[in-house]
Amino acid sequence: MTAGVQRDAAGLDVMSNAKLHYSSNAAEPYNKEQAPGKMADVNEVTELNALLAMKGGEGDASYAKNSQTQAQGFRFVQPVLQAAIHRMDLPTRTGVVRIADLGCSSGPNSVNHMNIIVNTLRKRYASAAAAAAAAVAAQSAHPQQLPASGRKSAAVPEFDVYFADLPSNDFNSLLRHINRDYSRSSRDGTAAAAAANATGRVGSRVAGNGYFASCVAGSFYGRLFPRASVNVVFSSFSLHWLSKIPEAVQRQDSPAYNDGFVWIHGGKPAAAKAYAEQSRRDLVTFLRARAEEMVSGGLMFLLLKGRKDSDPTVQYDPDGVTMFGTQMEGVFNELISEGLLDASVRDSFNIPMYYPTVDEMREAIDESGSFLVDRLELLNDVPANPFTKQELEANPTDCGRKLAKICRSLLGVLVDTHMGVNVADQFFHRLELRAITRSRAESLRPRAAYSNVNLAVLIKK
Amino acid sequence: MTAGVQRDAAGLDVMSNAKLHYSSNAAEPYNKEQAPGKMADVNEVTELNALLAMKGGEGDASYAKNSQTQAQGFRFVQPVLQAAIHRMDLPTRTGVVRIADLGCSSGPNSVNHMNIIVNTLRKRYASAAAAAAAAVAAQSAHPQQLPASGRKSAAVPEFDVYFADLPSNDFNSLLRHINRDYSRSSRDGTAAAAAANATGRVGSRVAGNGYFASCVAGSFYGRLFPRASVNVVFSSFSLHWLSKIPEAVQRQDSPAYNDGFVWIHGGKPAAAKAYAEQSRRDLVTFLRARAEEMVSGGLMFLLLKGRKDSDPTVQYDPDGVTMFGTQMEGVFNELISEGLLDASVRDSFNIPMYYPTVDEMREAIDESGSFLVDRLELLNDVPANPFTKQELEANPTDCGRKLAKICRSLLGVLVDTHMGVNVADQFFHRLELRAITRSRAESLRPRAAYSNVNLAVLIKK
Repeated sequence: MTAGVQRDAAGLDVMSNAKLHYSSNAAEPYNKEQAPGKMADVNEVTELNALLAMKGGEGDASYAKNSQTQAQGFRFVQPVLQAAIHRMDLPTRTGVVRIADLGCSSGPNSVNHMNIIVNTLRKRYASAAAAAAAAVAAQSAHPQQLPASGRKSAAVPEFDVYFADLPSNDFNSLLRHINRDYSRSSRDGTAAAAAANATGRVGSRVAGNGYFASCVAGSFYGRLFPRASVNVVFSSFSLHWLSKIPEAVQRQDSPAYNDGFVWIHGGKPAAAKAYAEQSRRDLVTFLRARAEEMVSGGLMFLLLKGRKDSDPTVQYDPDGVTMFGTQMEGVFNELISEGLLDASVRDSFNIPMYYPTVDEMREAIDESGSFLVDRLELLNDVPANPFTKQELEANPTDCGRKLAKICRSLLGVLVDTHMGVNVADQFFHRLELRAITRSRAESLRPRAAYSNVNLAVLIKK
Repeated sequence: MTAGVQRDAAGLDVMSNAKLHYSSNAAEPYNKEQAPGKMADVNEVTELNALLAMKGGEGDASYAKNSQTQAQGFRFVQPVLQAAIHRMDLPTRTGVVRIADLGCSSGPNSVNHMNIIVNTLRKRYASAAAAAAAAVAAQSAHPQQLPASGRKSAAVPEFDVYFADLPSNDFNSLLRHINRDYSRSSRDGTAAAAAANATGRVGSRVAGNGYFASCVAGSFYGRLFPRASVNVVFSSFSLHWLSKIPEAVQRQDSPAYNDGFVWIHGGKPAAAKAYAEQSRRDLVTFLRARAEEMVSGGLMFLLLKGRKDSDPTVQYDPDGVTMFGTQMEGVFNELISEGLLDASVRDSFNIPMYYPTVDEMREAIDESGSFLVDRLELLNDVPANPFTKQELEANPTDCGRKLAKICRSLLGVLVDTHMGVNVADQFFHRLELRAITRSRAESLRPRAAYSNVNLAVLIKK
């Protein structure tokens, strides 16, 4: 299949790649073949966690300032999330509903997602309370009916939201976003804030729409929460980041050694197979950890990059686009041919990312054994650009610069660590030139760039 | 009583003051007279939270590098904490025990405290499990006895630890301490780490001795956690920081206006009375918020600075010592007399700190109405220095410099904000000179400096 891939058509697919789980230590991969149910080894996870994250802070190159594409991708599926919440069993067992965003990063997107989930749940509880009140009224008229106390309780619980990401994530920035959102919405006097105030239980930790918030530092490829404690798990554009680069891909004597490439798209079948196997293990590890943490009937909502072709060397469609992989390989090759970089720097660099097919997702879900599939599909037309077709046509240069900034906010820490900041500056300058060229080409296309995205709605058995 | 206070004897009492809850906005005090059970208003808490915290990071002036005195103070009472945990009802209702450190700051102390609490609880569960096993063995020998399943369950729960402080706290640094501790103890192969590994449930979020950790940003003078969810509340050297400076103390037309002073020790009775009233309200607000959050039978362990004298203008003993208050007033007065500072800068500066008596503590506990007093006393001989008498005698100059650094790690952000960084540099240089003088005097004293500390062990009704 490799020959059929349009490697040079690559260009703009940067909508996702929001999170990074990566190990540079080939001799000590942190996520070895594991016995079923066994979590990753303690030491190794720590080394991984110390390494990388989206670019923190609020600066021009930060993830917080470069995550509009992810926000746009999410808006596309927001109604699906809300519908899933409307279908799920309303938790009534305890007075607390716990919600987790896994791979929240440091920007404003996560706060927005959690607000939507809490508000949707809150509306359901309000409806249930209204229905219960109506039932009481009906019972007064017809006393022979069941007493209201025999019905499902509709008391509104308190909401506890966990924002989780790797320890290297900038949690200080995230907390500022949480508190900013909180003070803005409470000052605006929104209905949600008013409702929260009305409970008389609003403390300083309660965000704008009335929930408790806390931050959790750790890899989602291990346990993050106490057993059977979480009702809703959400993860957006994170799970296509692998826990590590497969060892075989980094070993020079291995047939899967990925010399000449930095990713697997249009690359070596053996390397792509090793990536596919790593992705399967990571997905199963993720699902098994969540199975221990979630309550029965709990809802899991996953968004992650996906692909159509069963061949893992075809990570995106022939007319699909990406800034990663082929474009980055192009920059590596330029720098190598000009003598600015040794080929070994490229050969030892691998992007820890894999876009699974729906079938691969389903296999991992089946293997984990703890989730019912409510919905699982590949969305083929999720917008892949942070700007509109009109913006691209009006100013492709600005759009290209913006794309390069997005790339650096996602992969900058990894590239900086690999080749040093000085060479990395040169590297991203070249990538910017390519992004501008690609944006110009893109502005001439008949339709806007799109992206394939896996959507999974799972119910904990 | 003012005349009797030895203001010039002040010198070294810097063991506490670990946390800061302060509002600079006299026109909008965030903690107005509140109806019982009503938490602080949302907007006002936010403004407060944006203002201050212990000095973050890992630098020479950071709280993380200047909190040995607090650690020393805690070691003094560690056996009391462990005994209280041994007396408390062992939580068996759910599979999770939740523990909160309120006012954790960014340094290593909090991680140490939480490790001690979790390890002590873990030992109790292990003992209970051993007792249950023995009972099963006894039952086999004497089948007429109660079956083991009829006994209290001894299954070891999972531990969920919340590290809470104001949003301005440096949580990134704290998370590094949590993860550093975690990787160190797991690499050392300590018994605790081995035990955690043995459960097969250790994920990357599980710290060294096997607990889940998360960070919570918010003021403890409001709700921080969902209702009835916390089993153990711990707070060390934080609760003597007031939520705000009383309005009357800042108003020029008020009899309590605190011109000429920066604190209340040896100061104006009317100002001290306003501070005392603020402290009472803050303590009651704190206890009411915790009463909603804690489970019945839950344990609260509080350490905070305290005083002997019922007169609030006598915040420490005649032979007691402090770097705050009188020493800082001395520096203000120097700068004012030299024309470097306007008197209004001193008159508008007030340290938001109050050392309650045991009686004042008891009144607040009674007023809150939700806690049984297991233990409440003033400890009179808690070490107040970060160094020994020998170290003081050997090198009083170094000790003085160290003390001034501690002051700046605690009050530096507040002083910087109030007078600007340039004048604040001058201010803390003068304070250092005084600290060196005081350390020299201290080195000649017959006994080491001590500190009065309130210790409260409370049980949630």
